[in-house]
Amino acid sequence: MKAKLITAVVLAFTLTSGCFRDNEKICQFSTINALMAGCYQGQFRCAELTRMGNFGIGTFDKLDGEMVLLDGTVYQVKSNGSVYPVSKNLLTPFAVVTSFSSDKQIELKGNYSFPELQKQIDSRLPVTNIFYAIRIDAHFEYVRTRSVPAQQKPYPKLTEVVKDQPVFETIDTSGTLAGFKCPDYIFPLNVPGYHLHFISSKRDCGGHLLECRAHDPVIKIDYIRQIKLLLPPGGDFDSTDLRISDQNSLDKIEK
Amino acid sequence: MKAKLITAVVLAFTLTSGCFRDNEKICQFSTINALMAGCYQGQFRCAELTRMGNFGIGTFDKLDGEMVLLDGTVYQVKSNGSVYPVSKNLLTPFAVVTSFSSDKQIELKGNYSFPELQKQIDSRLPVTNIFYAIRIDAHFEYVRTRSVPAQQKPYPKLTEVVKDQPVFETIDTSGTLAGFKCPDYIFPLNVPGYHLHFISSKRDCGGHLLECRAHDPVIKIDYIRQIKLLLPPGGDFDSTDLRISDQNSLDKIEK
Repeated sequence: MKAKLITAVVLAFTLTSGCFRDNEKICQFSTINALMAGCYQGQFRCAELTRMGNFGIGTFDKLDGEMVLLDGTVYQVKSNGSVYPVSKNLLTPFAVVTSFSSDKQIELKGNYSFPELQKQIDSRLPVTNIFYAIRIDAHFEYVRTRSVPAQQKPYPKLTEVVKDQPVFETIDTSGTLAGFKCPDYIFPLNVPGYHLHFISSKRDCGGHLLECRAHDPVIKIDYIRQIKLLLPPGGDFDSTDLRISDQNSLDKIEK
Repeated sequence: MKAKLITAVVLAFTLTSGCFRDNEKICQFSTINALMAGCYQGQFRCAELTRMGNFGIGTFDKLDGEMVLLDGTVYQVKSNGSVYPVSKNLLTPFAVVTSFSSDKQIELKGNYSFPELQKQIDSRLPVTNIFYAIRIDAHFEYVRTRSVPAQQKPYPKLTEVVKDQPVFETIDTSGTLAGFKCPDYIFPLNVPGYHLHFISSKRDCGGHLLECRAHDPVIKIDYIRQIKLLLPPGGDFDSTDLRISDQNSLDKIEK
């Protein structure tokens, strides 16, 4: 009987490990074109995100701030610049997460702007057609981020919201950039190119990265060839016209 | 000890059933823009497809014909119109599969062209923004399909291949249309709108559906809100410029 028990447990482990391998891939909750169109209704619990990964970015119900998921903790950067770890019951309309596992580490010396970081990373990536999760730890001589305030219904489009987005400039802080580089063909499902969010080591500032000056950055890159896309179970996603997004609008939102 | 064994088995079932639920969702192997760009190198075994679903469509290594996956069997419609069940080791560069589970059944009386079938289905779908697997069993007074011949390297783009595609017209045959309706925002990852392949009940003709006249069709629809995208592990997918696809080219290919 003991042998049978062990067999059953081994069977359980073998079968479920095939399932848990999913956690090593990108799991995307909803689509960026839905967010652009004003689908800000939170439809996924943060507990669902952390079940699928320990690393990622996104936003919150009503578009209430920028999300950073780092080392398994979900942080909310509110539109006044304050940072909070959030309840697992808080809802999100859009997030992209992975179980981060570094395939390549790059240690640079000196100072790098955001475009310079991209150039350094691009020159070392093996392929342009796959997905990368990117984590950059550094001391930041300068970092400029933005967050977005919670919206009221009827929700405006994202291009309208970001026209007067709160922007924060911080000097002399250590912290982490977390996010993804996606191939061009992912639009309009997700953001092509680099999409990084910042959070300070002291967890006192952060947001969607606009510009930076990173000193001696340590860059970790996770190569990814599997995406799991979960559409919202209903709500405003179902009733919104999603055919109207274009990439020029996205550029205005992201940059 | 017996109780522990049962507990272990129940645990195994519970955990793995969470995993197997994946099989009820769309699993997509590679992207349509890669296929359009000439990535015809088979990189997934048909055994991988049938592990992820019992229903779907696709093509084969070197673009050698049209694929229909129906009731767990993978069929190849060659460019001379002949149909074969294939070896599990045959490779595919692109396929979309699901474990078909009908959420809605529609039984129509009379004759319907392909556009009329689309209109009938569209009027009964609850939401335009999600994915649907669609199975239509009928007697076909008429069905027009195409297949594509195996290509030689250097592979031409798909728009070039379909310029002189073999087209087959069959009258008075029973059979099944299998495929998907995807929302517009899925392009360029997959084909927006209806994408159906045909196979006769006698398994003696089939292909990519161009037009039909279906009598008393029985339509089954599976509502889908989860997509798993698997990129090829390397090969021509990695080295091809995937930024060149446009939806007008796809319309020329599909219609």
